[in-house]
This record gives sequence, structure tokens and C-alpha cells, in this order.
Amino acid sequence: MEDLQSSADPITELIVAFNELNSSHIEELYEEPSPLEFMRFVAKNTPFVVRGAAAGWRATQTWNAKSLEEQLGKEPVNVAVTPIGNADAPTHHPEYGALVFAKPWEEDQPFDEFLNYVIQQEKDNLPLESTSEVRYAQTQNDNLRNEYAALFRDASPEIPFARIALQREPEAINLWIGNSRSTTALHKDNYENIYVQIAGRKHFVLLPPLCQPCVNEQDLQPAQYHRLDSSSSPSSFLSPKEKENQGGLSLDVETASDTVPFAIWEPDRPLENATQYSKLAEPMRVTLEPGDMLYLPCMWYHKVSQSCSPEGICVAVNYWYDMEFTGPLYPMSSFIRSVYHQDNPKK
Amino acid sequence: MEDLQSSADPITELIVAFNELNSSHIEELYEEPSPLEFMRFVAKNTPFVVRGAAAGWRATQTWNAKSLEEQLGKEPVNVAVTPIGNADAPTHHPEYGALVFAKPWEEDQPFDEFLNYVIQQEKDNLPLESTSEVRYAQTQNDNLRNEYAALFRDASPEIPFARIALQREPEAINLWIGNSRSTTALHKDNYENIYVQIAGRKHFVLLPPLCQPCVNEQDLQPAQYHRLDSSSSPSSFLSPKEKENQGGLSLDVETASDTVPFAIWEPDRPLENATQYSKLAEPMRVTLEPGDMLYLPCMWYHKVSQSCSPEGICVAVNYWYDMEFTGPLYPMSSFIRSVYHQDNPKK
Ligand SMILES: O=C(O)CCC(=O)C(=O)O
Ligand SMILES: O=C(O)CCC(=O)C(=O)O
Repeated sequence: MEDLQSSADPITELIVAFNELNSSHIEELYEEPSPLEFMRFVAKNTPFVVRGAAAGWRATQTWNAKSLEEQLGKEPVNVAVTPIGNADAPTHHPEYGALVFAKPWEEDQPFDEFLNYVIQQEKDNLPLESTSEVRYAQTQNDNLRNEYAALFRDASPEIPFARIALQREPEAINLWIGNSRSTTALHKDNYENIYVQIAGRKHFVLLPPLCQPCVNEQDLQPAQYHRLDSSSSPSSFLSPKEKENQGGLSLDVETASDTVPFAIWEPDRPLENATQYSKLAEPMRVTLEPGDMLYLPCMWYHKVSQSCSPEGICVAVNYWYDMEFTGPLYPMSSFIRSVYHQDNPKK
Repeated sequence: MEDLQSSADPITELIVAFNELNSSHIEELYEEPSPLEFMRFVAKNTPFVVRGAAAGWRATQTWNAKSLEEQLGKEPVNVAVTPIGNADAPTHHPEYGALVFAKPWEEDQPFDEFLNYVIQQEKDNLPLESTSEVRYAQTQNDNLRNEYAALFRDASPEIPFARIALQREPEAINLWIGNSRSTTALHKDNYENIYVQIAGRKHFVLLPPLCQPCVNEQDLQPAQYHRLDSSSSPSSFLSPKEKENQGGLSLDVETASDTVPFAIWEPDRPLENATQYSKLAEPMRVTLEPGDMLYLPCMWYHKVSQSCSPEGICVAVNYWYDMEFTGPLYPMSSFIRSVYHQDNPKK
């Protein structure tokens, strides 16, 4: 590390200085913060976890495969389908010869069918190759107040300390149901996020906004999975080079669409796709147990993987609050990105 | 401005983006904020003024030339003496042939003598040339709890909303007594500052921390004024080239000392000493009337000038709270400075 300490490179200095002033161990609370206590964390854009904050929620106490099935039955729900649990993830496309930004195939499935698939797959625990597809209910469109409205009464309608501190209602409340095959790739959102674990566990790997130079953001061509037997698949219009057939799903590159800037480095494979700054990152790791509540500050990078409850499901609920765009954080974060890309043009 | 909008220069983009998202008009409150309301301003590093917040303080209601003199009499107080009110200011040194960082001559004076000088000078209102020196009580060393302890009971012992929000006591409480001849040059401090006007008016010109590229920070050689008749003056050791005799004060360059990084641009003379970014600055201006309270967030640049009460004095009290060094603000501000100086080495 001696070369980094003495280096005059501004980006190195930035990340080293941040690491010196900030712990990479998350602060653990055992009671919900007051609005003022919460605002202190917002002010320093620093995560915390409240162990057991939602242990008393009806959701945490009663949601399981049986109760969820009883409540939702055959209601159609939107399901993200991918071959290996890689919804919205940078994915190598062999024929296209490049990483693409892989969007899941989305379809409505009767809830009971979806849930049983998720559980059966977790139970079977077959090798990746012999599994045809991974299913994840992960529409980030306020689904708990819409598709899953029947369940909403079992969760908190909002997070009081966040509403009072931020002076706003949640912009979206999302339900996430999947199994250990799904991973959410490293990305960031312009929201203050209160993430509540209900069943199973979630493993978060977090990086602060100023680690932008570590994550190797590239402009990826978007691509979408399509079911080969689906009549709505546009596969037939594509050349073989732009298709990728895997487990009954074809990954079709959207060659006419704009590229998507996306991180291709991730802290769990630190030597792959690294930039010269990746080694400076000191990721913060936290596992949420059922009833735990995470404050994930706006613009923090997060990669999320999951473990199932004994029944074979992983269920979480999160609350997105619009972030504050006044003040220095947003323009300064864009500035870091501009400086990095000026010196390191995207390939 | 069209060339700026389309520019891809990261620093230009940073300042333009900040200006688009932030008002340059200060927010005016008419009651003290709650700790939570205050913390929202701290979180966005944004100033506000509370009109009349200290109108009821005994200091605001009773301090005047007579009452101050009654309380302090001939007590010796530390006085900053300069030829033109330029304590801690970049100052052209004709013989040295450069701007230097001019520190005031400091001496103890009986309070009544100091105060009468300040008042008489304001009353006389003589042209600059015929005035021999300007005096300003401005020791920023917690003087209200030390030198001026007799007055402390008339001011608030601390600012409750700030103590509760920031979870700390004031690091320093400072008293400022001077007349309209003194100006505090544009600079920034690593403190959260609650500034309270008692008598007369203060005129603040404010720039956010990310305007660092606008202020033309240069490494200035420190210099100190010395009274020519003072036995403690080291003037005799200096060559004529390193002295500057003005109104009985000699400005002696400390050639052996380290340079001081200091802003040499200022928003009230926008065409002088400008950088290519100075024209992007949108200074926030606010005048404090007696009883007004300003929140000056940490790391904001401020230039402060003053007008006197009818009696011919200007009196203020301010509370410095240590800033929070965790989170992104401090390292990101240093980063902007590094990037700017990488492209624009100091002369
Ligand atoms: O739970 C997940 O899989 C991802 C969560 C996430 O990305 C979010 O809450 O923003
Ligand atoms: O009142 C003045 O002259 C300067 C005040 C100042 O610089 C401060 O409060 O930090």
C-alpha cells in the first residue's frame, strides 16, 4: 500500500482519505432511531442496521409459504425469469462477444405456481446446468401497494422515523420473493432505502458513492431474455449472433437501444474486471436476519444475495424515499464520475 | 453562458449542476429550528438565517458603548491592529513584490481605550490615508468564555438546537468588536458556525465548499504587522525589501515560515485575481441585523464586512461546533481541490 499513501493521484487520495475517516463495519442499533438520530446518519450518508426492528411485524411473524399461498392463491404476479438468477446484471453474451446488461424475461404467473417453483428449486438444489430457469418476484414498482396489496396490511405502511426526518411518504414500497439462486448485481439508486428482512437472509455488500472509480462502470448494450416458446419473443427478427439460448431462454441484444452505464466490477470477485482503484475499496458487509432493518443511504452501491428460510424462500420488503438533491452530495458524486471517466474513457 | 453549458469540463459541470439544484438566496426563518429541522440543513450543508432569533438576548438588548465600558473598564483585551482593517487577509507587499498573508499586530489594550478608538474612528470617518490604524477585537480563541467572561452571561451559553442535533458543546464562543473599517477576507473553517449579530450589521458573502476552483487559492508567504515603536518588533532583523511601513506599522514577511494556502479572489471584485471558474460562482449574500442568527455550514467560504450601530460599533458573537468528518463531504471537498490544482498548479 505504500505506493498509494504517497501517491498524489486525486482519486487515490479521495478513497484513502474516506477509508481513514470512516469505518467499514456497519453500525448496529437495537432500537429504531428517532427522526433526529436517523437524520444524523442521513447527514453523513452512512448505513446502519437495526437488529430486530421488524421482529414484531405481522409479516415477520406470519408470512410463510402456506400463509402467502392462502392470501394470494392463483393471483397473477409479475415474475422476473433468468437462466441463472441474473436479472439486471452484466452478463457475458458469447455470440455477441461482450458483456451486455441482461434484463429478465417478465411474465405473469399464478402466485402459487411461482412460489412452489421457487421452493422446489431450492429443495432440489440441482447443479446450475440442469436447472432451466430462476424466478424472482422483484418488480421495483411499488408492488406491495399494488400487486401484493393483500399483504400490505401485515407490513408497516411506512417508516415513521424516515417520514418525519425526510418529510415525505415512501415513493415506492417493494416486496421481494425469491430463493438463493437470485443475486442483485452491484448498482446504486437515487433513493434513501429502508430495507426490511422478513424471511430468510439477505447478504449486502456496500460501497459508498465515492467508490465510483472502483466499480468499473461501462456502457453496456441492453439485452433481454425471452422465452423461446413465447409468442411475444422478438427472437425471430434477430441474427443468430445476437441470440443466446440458455435453459429455454434466449438473450436478445437490443442493438438499437441506448447503452446502459453499469458497474462490471464487484467486491466478491475483486480480481475480475478491476480498475486501478478497485483494490482501494473497503466494502461494508452486512447480513440481515428476519426482522432486521437496514438503512441503505442514497447512491451507495449495493450487491445483494440471499439465503432461504428452512421452507426455501427469501422474502423482504423495502421502502424507497426520494433523496435530497440540494446540497453537495449529488453534484459531487457526478463530479467524481466525470473526473474518473475523463482519465479512463469507457471501452 | 452557452459555452459553459455544453462544456465537458468536470469542474464546470460540477458548479453549474450545483447552481441548478441550489438557490443562491438564503432561506429565512422567523423562529429557531428544532434540532431535527436544523439537522436537515446540516445534512444538505445549506445556510439559513433566523431573523430576530436573539432579539431577546440580554446582550442584544443592553450592550452598547456605555454598558460595555462599565462592565470591562480598563481590563486589557487582545486587539488586532492593521493599517486598513486587513487582519488575516491577502495583502500586496510593494517591496516584497507579491501578495502575502498579512497577520495583524496583536497587543493588549485597556478595553475602554480600544472601544473609544473604534468609536472615534467611525465618527471621524477620515479618508483611509489619514487614519493610522484599524483595531478589531477578533481573537478566535473562545474569548467570550475567557477574556470577555464578564459579558458571557448576557449571551446564550450555547445554542440548544445545535447542541442537541450535533451532540456536542461549542468548541469556541467568540466575541467580535470592531467598526466598518475591518473586513474579514474570504476563507473557510472546519466548523459548523452559528453567528449572532448583537449591534450594528454584518454583511456576509457566502460560497459553498465546491466553489474552491473559483476562489483562486494560492500559497502565500505569511507576514505580520509590527508596531514600529514596539520593542518586540523583529523589524530590525529584516532587510528594507521585507518591510512595509504603513501608518506606523511595518509588514514583515516571515520568509522562513511555511506558506499559507489562501483564497485571493473575492466575489466583490469579481474581475480581479479570477480563475476561469470564478464567473460561475453565484454568491449567497445576507446582511445580519441586530438579533439575527446565521447558520454558516462547515467549509463554506465567507467574506464578512460590517456597518456600525449609530454609536459607531459593530458587535457579534459566534458559536463554533466541531464538524463531522465522517461521511463524504470532507474527502470530496479535498478531492475537488486536488483536481483543480492538478490542472492549475499554484503560481
Ligand atoms: O433485494 C434485492 O435483491 C435487491 C434490493 C435492492 O437492490 C434495493 O432495495 O434497492
Ligand atoms: O465577523 C467576522 O469578521 C468574521 C466571522 C468569521 O469569519 C467566522 O465567524 O468564522
